[in-house]
Amino acid sequence: MSHPLAALFSPRSIAFVGATERSVWTRAALANLRTLGYDGKLFLVNRKGGEVLGHPAVSTIRDIGEPVDVALLMVPSEALLDTLPELSAAGIRHAIILSAGFAESGAAGRELQGRLTSLARDHGVSLLGPNCLGFVNYTSKAPVWTVSLRPQRARDPKIAIVSQSGALAAQMSYFAQWQGIGLTYMVSTGNEAGVGVAQVIDYLVDDPSTRSIALFLESVRDAPAFARACLRASQAGKPIVVLKVGSSEVTVRSAQAHTGSLVGDDRVFDAACRRFGLVRVTSLEDLILTAEVLARWGKVPDGGLGLISLSGGLCEIAADRAADAGVNLPSLSPATSGRLAAALPDFGTPHNPLDVTGGALLDPSMLEKSLDAMTAEPAFAAVVAVLDVAASAADDGKLLRQLLAGVAAAQSRAARPTLLISHTVRPFSELSEEIIDATGCNYLPCGVEHGIRAVARAVEWSKLAREVQPSSSVNVAPVRGVHSSTNGSGTLAYVAPSERQGERRSPGVLIGVDARPQSERDVLEYLHGCGVPVVPAKVVNSAQDAVSHANALGSAVALKIVSPDIPHKTEVGGVMLNITGADAVAVAYEKILASARRAMPEARIEGISVGPMRDAGVELFVGTMRDPQWGPVITVGLGGVWVEALRDTSLRLLPISQDDALAMLDELRGKALLNGFRGTPAVDRNNLANVITAIGDAALALGPQLLSLEINPLRASGDRVEALDGWAEWEAASND
Amino acid sequence: MSHPLAALFSPRSIAFVGATERSVWTRAALANLRTLGYDGKLFLVNRKGGEVLGHPAVSTIRDIGEPVDVALLMVPSEALLDTLPELSAAGIRHAIILSAGFAESGAAGRELQGRLTSLARDHGVSLLGPNCLGFVNYTSKAPVWTVSLRPQRARDPKIAIVSQSGALAAQMSYFAQWQGIGLTYMVSTGNEAGVGVAQVIDYLVDDPSTRSIALFLESVRDAPAFARACLRASQAGKPIVVLKVGSSEVTVRSAQAHTGSLVGDDRVFDAACRRFGLVRVTSLEDLILTAEVLARWGKVPDGGLGLISLSGGLCEIAADRAADAGVNLPSLSPATSGRLAAALPDFGTPHNPLDVTGGALLDPSMLEKSLDAMTAEPAFAAVVAVLDVAASAADDGKLLRQLLAGVAAAQSRAARPTLLISHTVRPFSELSEEIIDATGCNYLPCGVEHGIRAVARAVEWSKLAREVQPSSSVNVAPVRGVHSSTNGSGTLAYVAPSERQGERRSPGVLIGVDARPQSERDVLEYLHGCGVPVVPAKVVNSAQDAVSHANALGSAVALKIVSPDIPHKTEVGGVMLNITGADAVAVAYEKILASARRAMPEARIEGISVGPMRDAGVELFVGTMRDPQWGPVITVGLGGVWVEALRDTSLRLLPISQDDALAMLDELRGKALLNGFRGTPAVDRNNLANVITAIGDAALALGPQLLSLEINPLRASGDRVEALDGWAEWEAASND
Repeated sequence: MSHPLAALFSPRSIAFVGATERSVWTRAALANLRTLGYDGKLFLVNRKGGEVLGHPAVSTIRDIGEPVDVALLMVPSEALLDTLPELSAAGIRHAIILSAGFAESGAAGRELQGRLTSLARDHGVSLLGPNCLGFVNYTSKAPVWTVSLRPQRARDPKIAIVSQSGALAAQMSYFAQWQGIGLTYMVSTGNEAGVGVAQVIDYLVDDPSTRSIALFLESVRDAPAFARACLRASQAGKPIVVLKVGSSEVTVRSAQAHTGSLVGDDRVFDAACRRFGLVRVTSLEDLILTAEVLARWGKVPDGGLGLISLSGGLCEIAADRAADAGVNLPSLSPATSGRLAAALPDFGTPHNPLDVTGGALLDPSMLEKSLDAMTAEPAFAAVVAVLDVAASAADDGKLLRQLLAGVAAAQSRAARPTLLISHTVRPFSELSEEIIDATGCNYLPCGVEHGIRAVARAVEWSKLAREVQPSSSVNVAPVRGVHSSTNGSGTLAYVAPSERQGERRSPGVLIGVDARPQSERDVLEYLHGCGVPVVPAKVVNSAQDAVSHANALGSAVALKIVSPDIPHKTEVGGVMLNITGADAVAVAYEKILASARRAMPEARIEGISVGPMRDAGVELFVGTMRDPQWGPVITVGLGGVWVEALRDTSLRLLPISQDDALAMLDELRGKALLNGFRGTPAVDRNNLANVITAIGDAALALGPQLLSLEINPLRASGDRVEALDGWAEWEAASND
Repeated sequence: MSHPLAALFSPRSIAFVGATERSVWTRAALANLRTLGYDGKLFLVNRKGGEVLGHPAVSTIRDIGEPVDVALLMVPSEALLDTLPELSAAGIRHAIILSAGFAESGAAGRELQGRLTSLARDHGVSLLGPNCLGFVNYTSKAPVWTVSLRPQRARDPKIAIVSQSGALAAQMSYFAQWQGIGLTYMVSTGNEAGVGVAQVIDYLVDDPSTRSIALFLESVRDAPAFARACLRASQAGKPIVVLKVGSSEVTVRSAQAHTGSLVGDDRVFDAACRRFGLVRVTSLEDLILTAEVLARWGKVPDGGLGLISLSGGLCEIAADRAADAGVNLPSLSPATSGRLAAALPDFGTPHNPLDVTGGALLDPSMLEKSLDAMTAEPAFAAVVAVLDVAASAADDGKLLRQLLAGVAAAQSRAARPTLLISHTVRPFSELSEEIIDATGCNYLPCGVEHGIRAVARAVEWSKLAREVQPSSSVNVAPVRGVHSSTNGSGTLAYVAPSERQGERRSPGVLIGVDARPQSERDVLEYLHGCGVPVVPAKVVNSAQDAVSHANALGSAVALKIVSPDIPHKTEVGGVMLNITGADAVAVAYEKILASARRAMPEARIEGISVGPMRDAGVELFVGTMRDPQWGPVITVGLGGVWVEALRDTSLRLLPISQDDALAMLDELRGKALLNGFRGTPAVDRNNLANVITAIGDAALALGPQLLSLEINPLRASGDRVEALDGWAEWEAASND
């Protein structure tokens, strides 16, 4: 069964509606058909009929006389509303809209786009755009693209570009050409009134020619559909590399100014990438290069990187960049060292990175032998060799041909993925192309900086791909009553923990408004019921009860005010610590009460909590919140100054596994504190991770009206982990 | 007066010694003379005489019959020792040695290089190399370079490449060509047995054609000479951009393996760059591009960056990359906004970055007008526009010519530096070259990622250049008795604070072995004498004295063991805090003494320090240490877990100014703690910076035998700053 978008993206008949001689768009679109060698049917529609640039034109859509797969609409914005019914009447189910002036240009444009969307839906026409440049299907030679294309030097195209910006898609395609990288598709989605990046990804997952996807995003408009498409891609082993703007404050500000689009919380998007198996890059160059490396390599085994070059200096630069890019350069095993030493008797101790030295120019077999040895090293996920191809071509390429033939031979024998790269980013010259074609060498002229980053991201993607849960276990259906996205399909859903994993006790059913925990007491009680260890504190309403609970605990106690209206207890004098003895407890009770009443006379006071003092430990902050696009997320940080002044936190989409929680702890800058410090015992990370996971599940079980659940502090010392305080916030009750 | 290296680097006569028909080096060196159009004298020396590749050859150096400016030695390593005296006898003062197999290849090579160095010195011959590729003087068309050069498309060359790696110099020159960037010089220094990067920089400071220097370093071999040369360049307003390997652990390991060179402490090198006015980059591409931007711009005014493009998405990518590169994108002033709104009536509120929109393709004057308005914005140090030159050249370049003519006109009128860049890094095509030549546009096809980084570093260099102290006030002469570098010229020297600034009292004379403070008591007393505020603690030797000093203080006290043999007091039970009352003080005194004696029976105990307890404040760590290359450095961090577990520190070469100390505090990740947190008062940063500066001066005044001076903690609360504990380590007394 073919994909619903097959007719759009692999059209056998195309109509250009509103084609005119003077239009640069018409000229470019027609020229592009010739450039790629499109051999399907073409119809031009021009109000005056006659001929446009040598092609016969009909004067109305109806006059085409047969349904066509896709219509490119080059008519003014105001005429679009009349055009859609005509398409429908003519049996045309797919339309591409170039015009700008819609949602990106303010309220009136948003309103117009809304009308366009409903009209298209009513008439059963799917829209690509508006405010886009169209698409190019290089594989079946079908371009519907309105700026000038260049013929693709076809070098086994493997990657597809999907971009919300048409201009940047074009720029990426130029860069790909300079690098000798072939494209299967280029799709510009613009404002996404109909077909969005999610649908395009979904289509490309089914396209056998596309081995990876390079995605440029300004904003995710339909998070659930996007997540579903990404998970499908991940399951199909098809990597998605994404460049998304919005990492800086300025970007968020200016994106709002430019297009009114919600750039979204960048850290939450990072968490979404991790959950759905995307790797993220930061430049147009890295986007194309990473997608190409992944297309060539596919999933690489676990491990680090092996590096070879003829220059010691280059080895060192590469090693520094590998450290920056977060990829290991493992040391060589004795077996590999021995093999290298035997193959290359004249140099000292072999290392990774391996400097083959300029000696390889005198004996080209050194490079091949080194590659053979390095690609046998089990610690490596992949091996990268650095050699500048055209640059060494002084002798008309003779030496170079020898070197590359050796590299290619070693690459073809290699047990793990390999890549030859240039020293600096450079054009893929005709000489390079000729030699590479002749030798079959796996080469990219991307330079060490971009190359190492691309390779590091390929290793990262492979790791993610092994971790990503299959889509069946992540429910991304829309949820009622949560902030809606443009397309009306809602946010990512809550997953009741019981659906996900059987081992944890969970309330299972959503909680009614009356039973919503909010105060410290209620939250801790609720958490206790969810299997989260909680400090054995009791809320009392008299000095006498305070004393008697303190006696029962048999240790020094902490007294704290309990009120749904007082989130910051210390500031109202609502906390006293390390109190011993009946009298002192009674005095503290009265003092706290008086102080809190003085500071906040209106606050509803539920009592005073009396709990045991604990010896020194590490305090953590665990909080969940509801992201408008991606649904519930969880944040973990070290407590106090760490989270409040330093924002040293790790974030994930919920639900999380124990492994996720362990990885979150490992991301904290202050994680060394967990290892024990100056006499405090090391924290049992597995136990702590279990508790964090349980808190996440407990938050999910509270349902979609929960805005946030905070445990602060969660105290950890050795293998004891206890929630000392908790707080919940809820969406104001409406009609739920 | 010409520079001592003028004959080497601008030779009017060259001899190739050991030239043979079969040698690829000889062939390349001869071809390069032709390629560049060298018009000076050339002599070939070949043992057999006759003819080499069509040139007449003499059989000995003596047979040349006249002194020549420089000799390129292509003879085997073992023959070099005989050759040097012959050069000297023939009046040849400069030699370039290609051969490898010297200091980079182990102990025997180091020994051979040592002999070469002494022989050269004895015979008055200066050496470039060994293990180098030579140099190219593009300005006077004199290449002595042994791999094939390509003719330079001469586009007003402005930058010089100086590199310890010849192979990487060549790669950088290729990249420069692809970018349309011209070179004045390319110098490969190799093992630096004679002429090192310091001498080459010194030479280039005097070369009027060279406007900036791109420097690749594996290690600094002569720190004082390097520092002097860099300061001269800074004073001359000649930027140096440096790529130095060694930021990662792997590099340090592998550099030692490859070449035995000391890569050095990377953070100390960062501090040296800051002190001597170098900016540092991380890739070969950025090295060339940053040098070129600085060569074109020179020193830019203080401020942020203005950005213009025709694509909203591109604006956002650029803004994210600017944030990563550490350069501000200031908001527009009302005047600039108004001007843009008037010039471009059809778009909404102008912003920085400015999206001129694709509308500029219909009305090319929009780009020019926007540039005019943006370059008048006083908040900007410089303005960058993004437009892909060749990529838009669909109409044979007509529209592009119009756009670029407008950009060039606005650039020529601009009150601040401007640059046009491409979207992605790309080759400088012939069409681009033609249009750029015709319009005079200031353009680099470097792409947004590299371009924004280069521009950010240009802004950084300009800021540094304003801060760098003139060389007269930084004494970089070698100092006796400190670890010597390869060239025997030692480390950077101590500067007695009194020489540098009159305002601070200082001991002035170096301290004798007997008077060297080491224990807590001595260090705090010494610091007190240097104007560093110190806690009023007293070291006592009886419980009775402890009680009486506690009474005198009139507050709760802290008791601490004082011993030169116990650096970690807590671990031996040597600290008791918050003690009140005579009995408790007496008990604590005995307890500490007993505990410390039990734990370390051999320790020399000087007594117990009794000092006042202070209320909560921020604890800092201030430590100095002696770097073997760069001399004394100072490290500041937040105390306790911050410095011990997180390594959250800032580092500078000594001496530092108060501004330096303020900047150091600002670099700390935990700096928010200084602003006051949960009731602790904000720290007076100026006062704290003064104390840190005084500690640095006090360390310098202790002279070069001081290994380290640690103040831990330095307590700060409000405007009170006090050293609570101190420690010093000294080089073992030898024959000083």
